[in-house]
Amino acid sequence: MKFCCWCGEPVVRKIPQQDDRPRFVCERCDVVHYENPKIVTGCLPVWEDRILLCKRSIEPRRGYWTLPAGFMELDETSIEGAIRETWEEATARVEVQGLYSMFNLPHINQVYIMFRSRLLDLDFRPGQESEDVQLFREEDIPWDDLAFTTIRQTLRFYFQDRPSNRYPLRTGNIIRESNGFRFEPGPGDG
Amino acid sequence: MKFCCWCGEPVVRKIPQQDDRPRFVCERCDVVHYENPKIVTGCLPVWEDRILLCKRSIEPRRGYWTLPAGFMELDETSIEGAIRETWEEATARVEVQGLYSMFNLPHINQVYIMFRSRLLDLDFRPGQESEDVQLFREEDIPWDDLAFTTIRQTLRFYFQDRPSNRYPLRTGNIIRESNGFRFEPGPGDG
Repeated sequence: MKFCCWCGEPVVRKIPQQDDRPRFVCERCDVVHYENPKIVTGCLPVWEDRILLCKRSIEPRRGYWTLPAGFMELDETSIEGAIRETWEEATARVEVQGLYSMFNLPHINQVYIMFRSRLLDLDFRPGQESEDVQLFREEDIPWDDLAFTTIRQTLRFYFQDRPSNRYPLRTGNIIRESNGFRFEPGPGDG
Repeated sequence: MKFCCWCGEPVVRKIPQQDDRPRFVCERCDVVHYENPKIVTGCLPVWEDRILLCKRSIEPRRGYWTLPAGFMELDETSIEGAIRETWEEATARVEVQGLYSMFNLPHINQVYIMFRSRLLDLDFRPGQESEDVQLFREEDIPWDDLAFTTIRQTLRFYFQDRPSNRYPLRTGNIIRESNGFRFEPGPGDG
Protein backbone atom coordinates (compact mmCIF):
# COMPACT_ATOMS: atom_id res chain seq x y z
CA MET A 1 0.00 0.00 0.00
CA LYS A 2 1.37 3.38 -1.06
CA PHE A 3 -1.63 5.72 -1.29
CA CYS A 4 -4.72 6.40 0.81
CA CYS A 5 -7.72 4.71 -0.84
CA TRP A 6 -9.99 7.50 0.46
CA CYS A 7 -8.11 10.63 -0.67
CA GLY A 8 -5.23 9.44 -2.90
CA GLU A 9 -2.47 11.03 -0.77
CA PRO A 10 0.67 8.97 -0.03
CA VAL A 11 0.37 7.00 3.21
CA VAL A 12 3.04 6.79 5.89
CA ARG A 13 4.08 3.72 7.87
CA LYS A 14 3.91 4.43 11.59
CA ILE A 15 2.58 3.20 14.93
CA PRO A 16 -0.73 5.00 15.56
CA GLN A 17 -1.50 6.43 19.00
CA GLN A 18 -2.75 3.76 21.41
CA ASP A 19 -1.50 1.05 19.08
CA ASP A 20 1.59 -1.14 19.28
CA ARG A 21 2.42 -2.03 15.69
CA PRO A 22 3.18 -0.15 12.47
CA ARG A 23 0.23 0.52 10.15
CA PHE A 24 -0.33 2.44 6.95
CA VAL A 25 -1.75 5.80 8.01
CA CYS A 26 -3.12 8.72 5.97
CA GLU A 27 -2.14 11.88 7.79
CA ARG A 28 -4.55 13.94 5.68
CA CYS A 29 -7.64 11.81 6.40
CA ASP A 30 -6.33 10.75 9.82
CA VAL A 31 -7.31 7.21 8.84
CA VAL A 32 -5.50 3.98 9.76
CA HIS A 33 -5.58 1.41 6.95
CA TYR A 34 -5.73 -1.91 8.80
CA GLU A 35 -4.76 -5.12 7.03
CA ASN A 36 -6.08 -8.45 8.27
CA PRO A 37 -6.00 -12.14 7.36
CA LYS A 38 -8.51 -13.52 4.87
CA ILE A 39 -10.78 -16.52 5.11
CA VAL A 40 -10.67 -19.27 2.52
CA THR A 41 -13.88 -21.30 2.73
CA GLY A 42 -14.60 -24.59 1.01
CA CYS A 43 -16.22 -28.00 1.00
CA LEU A 44 -15.22 -31.60 1.35
CA PRO A 45 -17.96 -33.04 -0.89
CA VAL A 46 -18.71 -36.71 -0.21
CA TRP A 47 -20.59 -39.22 -2.39
CA GLU A 48 -20.81 -42.64 -0.72
CA ASP A 49 -17.14 -43.69 -0.28
CA ARG A 50 -15.81 -41.10 -2.71
CA ILE A 51 -14.62 -37.48 -2.46
CA LEU A 52 -14.96 -34.84 -5.14
CA LEU A 53 -11.70 -33.18 -6.17
CA CYS A 54 -11.03 -30.45 -8.78
CA LYS A 55 -7.93 -30.24 -10.97
CA ARG A 56 -6.89 -26.60 -11.05
CA SER A 57 -6.75 -24.86 -14.42
CA ILE A 58 -5.27 -21.68 -12.93
CA GLU A 59 -2.21 -20.68 -10.94
CA PRO A 60 -1.15 -21.18 -8.25
CA ARG A 61 -0.70 -24.95 -8.51
CA ARG A 62 -2.24 -25.35 -11.95
CA GLY A 63 -2.71 -29.03 -12.80
CA TYR A 64 -2.86 -30.12 -9.16
CA TRP A 65 -5.94 -31.45 -7.36
CA THR A 66 -7.84 -29.55 -4.69
CA LEU A 67 -11.07 -29.45 -2.73
CA PRO A 68 -13.34 -26.63 -3.96
CA ALA A 69 -12.52 -23.52 -1.90
CA GLY A 70 -11.87 -19.82 -2.28
CA PHE A 71 -11.93 -16.44 -0.59
CA MET A 72 -15.03 -15.67 1.43
CA GLU A 73 -16.82 -12.68 -0.08
CA LEU A 74 -18.54 -9.71 1.55
CA ASP A 75 -22.24 -10.14 2.43
CA GLU A 76 -22.15 -13.93 2.66
CA THR A 77 -21.78 -16.47 5.45
CA SER A 78 -18.88 -18.92 5.48
CA ILE A 79 -21.24 -21.77 4.50
CA GLU A 80 -22.75 -19.73 1.65
CA GLY A 81 -19.19 -19.07 0.46
CA ALA A 82 -18.29 -22.77 0.62
CA ILE A 83 -21.40 -23.72 -1.37
CA ARG A 84 -20.73 -20.95 -3.91
CA GLU A 85 -17.11 -22.05 -4.43
CA THR A 86 -18.21 -25.67 -4.89
CA TRP A 87 -20.66 -24.53 -7.55
CA GLU A 88 -18.12 -22.25 -9.27
CA GLU A 89 -15.26 -24.76 -9.37
CA ALA A 90 -17.16 -28.03 -9.86
CA THR A 91 -20.73 -27.05 -10.82
CA ALA A 92 -21.64 -29.34 -7.94
CA ARG A 93 -24.53 -28.98 -5.50
CA VAL A 94 -23.93 -29.90 -1.87
CA GLU A 95 -25.67 -29.97 1.48
CA VAL A 96 -23.30 -28.79 4.21
CA GLN A 97 -23.16 -31.06 7.26
CA GLY A 98 -20.85 -29.09 9.52
CA LEU A 99 -17.55 -27.32 9.96
CA TYR A 100 -14.76 -29.90 9.84
CA SER A 101 -11.39 -28.13 9.77
CA MET A 102 -9.94 -24.72 10.51
CA PHE A 103 -6.26 -24.20 9.74
CA ASN A 104 -4.19 -21.02 10.12
CA LEU A 105 -1.63 -20.25 7.40
CA PRO A 106 0.17 -17.30 9.00
CA HIS A 107 2.87 -17.10 6.28
CA ILE A 108 0.21 -16.04 3.75
CA ASN A 109 -2.29 -14.56 6.23
CA GLN A 110 -5.09 -16.98 5.44
CA VAL A 111 -7.44 -19.04 7.59
CA TYR A 112 -8.85 -22.09 5.82
CA ILE A 113 -12.22 -23.42 6.92
CA MET A 114 -13.57 -26.58 5.30
CA PHE A 115 -17.09 -27.93 5.65
CA ARG A 116 -18.03 -31.60 5.42
CA SER A 117 -20.77 -31.83 2.86
CA ARG A 118 -22.94 -34.30 0.99
CA LEU A 119 -22.90 -34.18 -2.78
CA LEU A 120 -26.56 -34.02 -3.89
CA ASP A 121 -26.20 -35.56 -7.34
CA LEU A 122 -23.60 -36.63 -9.90
CA ASP A 123 -24.37 -33.82 -12.30
CA PHE A 124 -21.04 -32.00 -11.88
CA ARG A 125 -18.50 -30.71 -14.41
CA PRO A 126 -15.44 -28.45 -14.37
CA GLY A 127 -16.10 -24.79 -13.65
CA GLN A 128 -14.01 -21.90 -14.93
CA GLU A 129 -11.06 -22.52 -12.58
CA SER A 130 -10.92 -26.31 -13.07
CA GLU A 131 -9.80 -28.48 -15.94
CA ASP A 132 -11.24 -31.68 -14.48
CA VAL A 133 -13.53 -32.77 -11.65
CA GLN A 134 -13.61 -36.36 -10.40
CA LEU A 135 -14.69 -38.55 -7.51
CA PHE A 136 -11.90 -40.46 -5.74
CA ARG A 137 -11.97 -43.41 -3.38
CA GLU A 138 -9.39 -43.28 -0.55
CA GLU A 139 -7.03 -45.63 -2.40
CA ASP A 140 -7.17 -43.47 -5.53
CA ILE A 141 -6.54 -40.04 -3.95
CA PRO A 142 -3.62 -38.45 -5.87
CA TRP A 143 -1.67 -37.68 -2.69
CA ASP A 144 1.44 -36.56 -4.57
CA ASP A 145 -0.55 -34.26 -6.83
CA LEU A 146 -2.60 -32.37 -4.27
CA ALA A 147 -2.41 -28.60 -4.63
CA PHE A 148 -2.08 -27.49 -1.00
CA THR A 149 -1.03 -28.77 2.43
CA THR A 150 -4.42 -27.71 3.84
CA ILE A 151 -6.18 -30.01 1.39
CA ARG A 152 -3.86 -32.94 2.14
CA GLN A 153 -4.31 -32.48 5.89
CA THR A 154 -8.11 -32.20 5.67
CA LEU A 155 -8.27 -35.40 3.59
CA ARG A 156 -5.93 -37.23 5.98
CA PHE A 157 -8.15 -36.35 8.93
CA TYR A 158 -11.26 -37.32 7.01
CA PHE A 159 -10.04 -40.81 6.15
CA GLN A 160 -8.77 -41.21 9.71
CA ASP A 161 -12.21 -40.29 11.12
CA ARG A 162 -14.39 -42.11 8.61
CA PRO A 163 -14.19 -45.64 10.08
CA SER A 164 -15.77 -44.32 13.29
CA ASN A 165 -18.22 -42.07 11.41
CA ARG A 166 -17.42 -39.35 13.96
CA TYR A 167 -15.97 -36.10 12.69
CA PRO A 168 -14.76 -33.83 15.49
CA LEU A 169 -13.51 -30.39 14.48
CA ARG A 170 -9.86 -30.48 13.38
CA THR A 171 -7.76 -27.36 13.92
CA GLY A 172 -4.12 -26.45 13.55
CA ASN A 173 -1.48 -24.36 11.86
CA ILE A 174 0.35 -24.92 8.59
CA ILE A 175 3.85 -23.60 9.22
CA ARG A 176 6.21 -22.82 6.35
CA GLU A 177 9.73 -24.11 6.92
CA SER A 178 12.84 -24.02 4.78
CA ASN A 179 12.15 -27.47 3.31
CA GLY A 180 8.36 -27.38 3.06
CA PHE A 181 5.38 -27.20 5.36
CA ARG A 182 4.79 -28.61 8.82
CA PHE A 183 1.36 -29.27 10.33
CA GLU A 184 0.97 -28.26 13.97
CA PRO A 185 -2.25 -29.67 15.49
CA GLY A 186 -4.45 -27.36 17.57
CA PRO A 187 -5.22 -27.89 21.26
CA GLY A 188 -7.68 -30.69 21.96
CA ASP A 189 -6.97 -32.46 18.68
CA GLY A 190 -5.54 -35.98 18.50
CA MET B 1 -12.64 3.09 -1.61
CA LYS B 2 -12.01 5.90 -4.09
CA PHE B 3 -8.35 5.67 -5.08
CA CYS B 4 -5.92 2.90 -5.97
CA CYS B 5 -3.68 2.21 -2.97
CA TRP B 6 -0.81 1.27 -5.33
CA CYS B 7 -0.75 4.27 -7.72
CA GLY B 8 -3.18 6.88 -6.30
CA GLU B 9 -5.41 7.02 -9.42
CA PRO B 10 -9.21 7.01 -8.97
CA VAL B 11 -10.64 3.48 -9.04
CA VAL B 12 -13.71 2.44 -11.00
CA ARG B 13 -16.48 0.07 -9.89
CA LYS B 14 -16.98 -2.70 -12.42
CA ILE B 15 -17.22 -6.44 -12.90
CA PRO B 16 -13.74 -7.69 -13.86
CA GLN B 17 -13.32 -10.22 -16.66
CA GLN B 18 -14.02 -13.79 -15.49
CA ASP B 19 -15.71 -12.45 -12.37
CA ASP B 20 -19.38 -12.13 -11.52
CA ARG B 21 -19.59 -9.22 -9.08
CA PRO B 22 -18.58 -5.55 -9.04
CA ARG B 23 -15.17 -4.71 -7.56
CA PHE B 24 -13.01 -1.64 -7.23
CA VAL B 25 -10.57 -1.80 -10.14
CA CYS B 26 -7.59 0.39 -11.03
CA GLU B 27 -7.49 0.65 -14.81
CA ARG B 28 -3.98 2.09 -14.71
CA CYS B 29 -2.43 -0.71 -12.60
CA ASP B 30 -4.91 -3.31 -13.94
CA VAL B 31 -5.38 -4.37 -10.32
CA VAL B 32 -8.60 -5.58 -8.68
CA HIS B 33 -8.97 -4.39 -5.08
CA TYR B 34 -10.79 -7.26 -3.38
CA GLU B 35 -12.59 -6.70 -0.08
CA ASN B 36 -13.25 -9.61 2.25
CA PRO B 37 -14.74 -10.32 5.69
CA LYS B 38 -12.56 -9.98 8.78
CA ILE B 39 -12.01 -12.40 11.63
CA VAL B 40 -12.65 -11.36 15.23
CA THR B 41 -10.85 -13.77 17.54
CA GLY B 42 -11.26 -14.02 21.30
CA CYS B 43 -11.38 -16.11 24.46
CA LEU B 44 -13.95 -17.39 26.90
CA PRO B 45 -11.65 -17.38 29.97
CA VAL B 46 -12.81 -19.72 32.72
CA TRP B 47 -11.74 -19.82 36.38
CA GLU B 48 -13.52 -22.60 38.29
CA ASP B 49 -17.25 -21.76 37.95
CA ARG B 50 -16.62 -18.19 36.83
CA ILE B 51 -16.10 -16.41 33.49
CA LEU B 52 -13.97 -13.35 32.92
CA LEU B 53 -15.76 -10.42 31.31
CA CYS B 54 -14.44 -6.96 30.37
CA LYS B 55 -16.44 -3.74 30.60
CA ARG B 56 -15.72 -1.75 27.46
CA SER B 57 -14.20 1.71 27.86
CA ILE B 58 -14.44 2.46 24.12
CA GLU B 59 -17.13 2.62 21.47
CA PRO B 60 -18.94 0.73 20.13
CA ARG B 61 -20.95 -0.37 23.19
CA ARG B 62 -18.92 1.55 25.76
CA GLY B 63 -19.93 0.56 29.29
CA TYR B 64 -21.22 -2.87 28.24
CA TRP B 65 -19.61 -6.22 29.10
CA THR B 66 -17.82 -8.44 26.62
CA LEU B 67 -15.50 -11.40 26.32
CA PRO B 68 -11.99 -10.30 25.31
CA ALA B 69 -11.82 -10.34 21.49
CA GLY B 70 -10.65 -8.26 18.57
CA PHE B 71 -9.53 -8.30 14.95
CA MET B 72 -7.03 -11.00 14.04
CA GLU B 73 -3.77 -9.38 12.90
CA LEU B 74 -1.40 -10.26 10.08
CA ASP B 75 1.35 -12.79 10.89
CA GLU B 76 -0.47 -14.44 13.78
CA THR B 77 -2.62 -17.54 14.21
CA SER B 78 -6.20 -17.25 15.42
CA ILE B 79 -5.19 -18.65 18.84
CA GLU B 80 -2.27 -16.23 19.13
CA GLY B 81 -4.73 -13.43 18.33
CA ALA B 82 -7.19 -14.63 20.97
CA ILE B 83 -4.43 -14.81 23.62
CA ARG B 84 -3.13 -11.35 22.59
CA GLU B 85 -6.58 -9.77 22.83
CA THR B 86 -7.13 -11.34 26.26
CA TRP B 87 -3.86 -9.83 27.40
CA GLU B 88 -4.59 -6.42 25.87
CA GLU B 89 -8.13 -6.08 27.21
CA ALA B 90 -7.84 -7.84 30.58
CA THR B 91 -4.10 -8.26 31.22
CA ALA B 92 -5.06 -11.89 31.73
CA ARG B 93 -3.04 -14.98 30.86
CA VAL B 94 -4.88 -17.99 29.49
CA GLU B 95 -4.28 -21.48 28.18
CA VAL B 96 -6.48 -22.14 25.16
CA GLN B 97 -8.39 -25.43 25.28
CA GLY B 98 -10.07 -25.43 21.89
CA LEU B 99 -12.23 -23.60 19.39
CA TYR B 100 -15.73 -23.29 20.82
CA SER B 101 -17.81 -21.04 18.58
CA MET B 102 -17.74 -19.63 15.07
CA PHE B 103 -20.46 -17.15 14.14
CA ASN B 104 -20.93 -15.28 10.86
CA LEU B 105 -22.09 -11.66 11.05
CA PRO B 106 -22.74 -10.96 7.36
CA HIS B 107 -24.27 -7.48 7.99
CA ILE B 108 -20.88 -6.22 9.19
CA ASN B 109 -18.71 -8.74 7.30
CA GLN B 110 -17.17 -10.31 10.37
CA VAL B 111 -16.61 -13.91 11.46
CA TYR B 112 -16.31 -14.32 15.24
CA ILE B 113 -14.28 -17.25 16.55
CA MET B 114 -14.13 -17.81 20.31
CA PHE B 115 -11.79 -20.19 22.10
CA ARG B 116 -12.55 -21.89 25.40
CA SER B 117 -9.64 -21.15 27.68
CA ARG B 118 -8.42 -21.62 31.21
CA LEU B 119 -7.45 -18.52 33.15
CA LEU B 120 -3.95 -19.19 34.54
CA ASP B 121 -4.06 -16.88 37.56
CA LEU B 122 -6.12 -14.10 39.13
CA ASP B 123 -3.59 -11.40 38.36
CA PHE B 124 -5.75 -9.53 35.84
CA ARG B 125 -6.72 -5.86 35.53
CA PRO B 126 -8.35 -3.62 32.92
CA GLY B 127 -6.34 -3.03 29.76
CA GLN B 128 -6.52 0.08 27.59
CA GLU B 129 -9.92 -0.74 26.08
CA SER B 130 -11.60 -1.81 29.34
CA GLU B 131 -12.79 0.12 32.37
CA ASP B 132 -13.36 -2.96 34.50
CA VAL B 133 -12.59 -6.69 34.43
CA GLN B 134 -14.44 -9.15 36.65
CA LEU B 135 -15.23 -12.83 37.12
CA PHE B 136 -18.91 -13.77 36.97
CA ARG B 137 -20.78 -16.88 38.06
CA GLU B 138 -23.64 -17.94 35.78
CA GLU B 139 -26.27 -16.35 38.05
CA ASP B 140 -24.39 -13.05 38.07
CA ILE B 141 -23.79 -12.63 34.32
CA PRO B 142 -25.09 -9.17 33.33
CA TRP B 143 -27.24 -10.56 30.49
CA ASP B 144 -28.93 -7.22 29.82
CA ASP B 145 -25.64 -5.37 29.70
CA LEU B 146 -23.67 -7.58 27.32
CA ALA B 147 -22.07 -5.69 24.44
CA PHE B 148 -22.79 -8.00 21.50
CA THR B 149 -25.14 -10.80 20.42
CA THR B 150 -22.11 -13.01 19.67
CA ILE B 151 -21.01 -12.76 23.29
CA ARG B 152 -24.49 -13.51 24.65
CA GLN B 153 -24.84 -16.51 22.35
CA THR B 154 -21.40 -17.91 23.22
CA LEU B 155 -22.16 -17.60 26.95
CA ARG B 156 -25.60 -19.22 26.54
CA PHE B 157 -24.05 -22.21 24.80
CA TYR B 158 -21.32 -22.44 27.41
CA PHE B 159 -23.69 -22.60 30.37
CA GLN B 160 -25.88 -25.06 28.43
CA ASP B 161 -22.87 -27.34 27.80
CA ARG B 162 -21.17 -27.03 31.17
CA PRO B 163 -23.31 -29.52 33.15
CA SER B 164 -22.18 -32.29 30.77
CA ASN B 165 -18.60 -30.96 30.62
CA ARG B 166 -18.71 -31.56 26.85
CA TYR B 167 -18.18 -28.59 24.55
CA PRO B 168 -18.93 -29.40 20.90
CA LEU B 169 -18.21 -26.65 18.39
CA ARG B 170 -21.10 -24.19 18.11
CA THR B 171 -21.65 -22.45 14.80
CA GLY B 172 -24.27 -20.15 13.33
CA ASN B 173 -25.19 -16.79 11.90
CA ILE B 174 -26.17 -13.60 13.65
CA ILE B 175 -28.76 -12.00 11.35
CA ARG B 176 -29.72 -8.36 11.68
CA GLU B 177 -33.45 -7.76 11.51
CA SER B 178 -35.57 -4.63 11.81
CA ASN B 179 -36.11 -5.14 15.54
CA GLY B 180 -32.76 -6.57 16.58
CA PHE B 181 -30.70 -9.68 15.94
CA ARG B 182 -31.70 -13.27 15.35
CA PHE B 183 -29.41 -16.28 15.95
CA GLU B 184 -29.56 -18.95 13.26
CA PRO B 185 -27.82 -22.18 14.40
CA GLY B 186 -25.43 -23.88 11.98
CA PRO B 187 -25.92 -27.41 10.60
CA GLY B 188 -25.25 -30.18 13.08
CA ASP B 189 -25.84 -27.96 16.12
CA GLY B 190 -28.58 -28.63 18.60
